[in-house]
Amino acid sequence: MTDADARIHEAFVRQCIELAAEAVTAGNEPFGAVLVADGVIRHTARNQVVTRSDPTRHAELLLVSEASQRLERDVLSRATLYTSTEPCLMCCGAIYWSRIPRVVFGCSAGAMGALAGGSLATSSRQLFSHGRRPVSVIGPILEEEALAVHRAYWSREIP
Amino acid sequence: MTDADARIHEAFVRQCIELAAEAVTAGNEPFGAVLVADGVIRHTARNQVVTRSDPTRHAELLLVSEASQRLERDVLSRATLYTSTEPCLMCCGAIYWSRIPRVVFGCSAGAMGALAGGSLATSSRQLFSHGRRPVSVIGPILEEEALAVHRAYWSREIP
Repeated sequence: MTDADARIHEAFVRQCIELAAEAVTAGNEPFGAVLVADGVIRHTARNQVVTRSDPTRHAELLLVSEASQRLERDVLSRATLYTSTEPCLMCCGAIYWSRIPRVVFGCSAGAMGALAGGSLATSSRQLFSHGRRPVSVIGPILEEEALAVHRAYWSREIP
Repeated sequence: MTDADARIHEAFVRQCIELAAEAVTAGNEPFGAVLVADGVIRHTARNQVVTRSDPTRHAELLLVSEASQRLERDVLSRATLYTSTEPCLMCCGAIYWSRIPRVVFGCSAGAMGALAGGSLATSSRQLFSHGRRPVSVIGPILEEEALAVHRAYWSREIP
């Protein structure tokens, strides 16, 4: 990864971390995601699990769902999904089915799970390795910044 | 499994296979799912991937999403999700996060994938084994009936 690439990844991951903080302000869990194609943000999403009473409303799945309905397939097929935290099992599946070929994440699922008492910490690289189409994964990026939002949230929410 | 249990599972799996056939009639892929709690069907879903231009609209994920918004949590926590085909990565994640503790499927992901040219055939038992909460998995049940819908569909759709 060149320095220029690293700076681009950091800028978009930081935007995801901001969306994660906004999700908390809105009463949800601290996760945010951004879809970038041709260097431009095409869609953003914040976790909505609590306010919509729906455990499938993770930021990444919501992003895939909405972007698939709004954007052309060939945009998705050259897009990068940025996310504040490494995507879970469900979201890796959604990304794979959408044909988005690249994921860049802030903190790892393992590091987040250790803070949140997470119960299904899986490696996205390992999950994608079962697919026929490759999905490349870059991360962690700005892991400490990404974890800070989780540290504040999960220490507050869990008695 | 007692004979009585086997007959109950067969009846609900057969209903999923009928929903899968209805999904095809509606222009979608052949997958259907049913949520049962206390012996009663509480919700049903058909695949809607094609008509909604959304790769996350698998029958099982849709079922989890809608049921989570409509039913009390304690109903989900004693429910069984029946499905015509073993759930994929994405749907296993959705089931896990919803706290539904049991899955019964018609045909296996491997057998369906062999017909459909499937590209991410994963074992639901193996995926759930990474969780802290157990999710029990029963199947295949009526595998030949469940595969018949796929055989008709994928041989028609793929040139």
